Amino acid sequence: MVGADPIGLEPLDERACRGLLGDRGIGRVAVSIGAVPAVFPVNYGVLDGDVVFRTTDGTKFDAAVRRAVVAFEVDEVDPLYHEGWSVLVVGRAEVVTDEDRLARAGRLPMAPWAPGPHEHLVAIRPAMVSGRRIVQGRPA
Amino acid sequence: MVGADPIGLEPLDERACRGLLGDRGIGRVAVSIGAVPAVFPVNYGVLDGDVVFRTTDGTKFDAAVRRAVVAFEVDEVDPLYHEGWSVLVVGRAEVVTDEDRLARAGRLPMAPWAPGPHEHLVAIRPAMVSGRRIVQGRPA
Repeated sequence: MVGADPIGLEPLDERACRGLLGDRGIGRVAVSIGAVPAVFPVNYGVLDGDVVFRTTDGTKFDAAVRRAVVAFEVDEVDPLYHEGWSVLVVGRAEVVTDEDRLARAGRLPMAPWAPGPHEHLVAIRPAMVSGRRIVQGRPA
Repeated sequence: MVGADPIGLEPLDERACRGLLGDRGIGRVAVSIGAVPAVFPVNYGVLDGDVVFRTTDGTKFDAAVRRAVVAFEVDEVDPLYHEGWSVLVVGRAEVVTDEDRLARAGRLPMAPWAPGPHEHLVAIRPAMVSGRRIVQGRPA
């Protein structure tokens, strides 16, 4: 199978990845706290091609303020039928302060993961987008 | 609410986290490739308190060989009802070579995420385990 790697995962092109990113509700953000990696679930949306999510002061916000390179991952996996895909976005996180973008983000169907105040909007501008789909059976 | 942080997430103690880790099927492993973070879904199991998953040569395997510090995250989130939890494990990844452990891992209800050869078993020995549960309503 053309494009399949030896473990049965078929690379997805960037357009397919961006399509899958669209509206999945929950993804995971990976950041480094010092040398230690951490992963958090977030409710996210896509705004002008950026992955955006709300957060309060804390690890994720600190990473955004520092304009850290973070990873964002979203997937859909059916373990029973061995079908699924995963998309990975890597880019700098930054706090959104533009009033127009904040207003438009407010109209996205995006709930914060947890109740309570979520004062900041963080955007990840994709520098790299990659993804993989599980292919049935072993590639040649 | 005692123990709740300002964004409505209640910390879970280590025992609760290890209970939730038990048998969720799919989690996400975060590794760094150079300075760039990446996240991958894996089918996992728990063996002797370690998080274990199968993989082939590649990013996750390379991290294990290097005995890198990696993060593993598993969550269950219901966006509609604002309920859920997430557990984060941080520890060194290493390739399992012990025959007894490999045999016991073979009896775990753990499928590889993708079909095809998955030649290596990687274990993450938890150095830090933390978790959070969403609490309903705003903490005081």
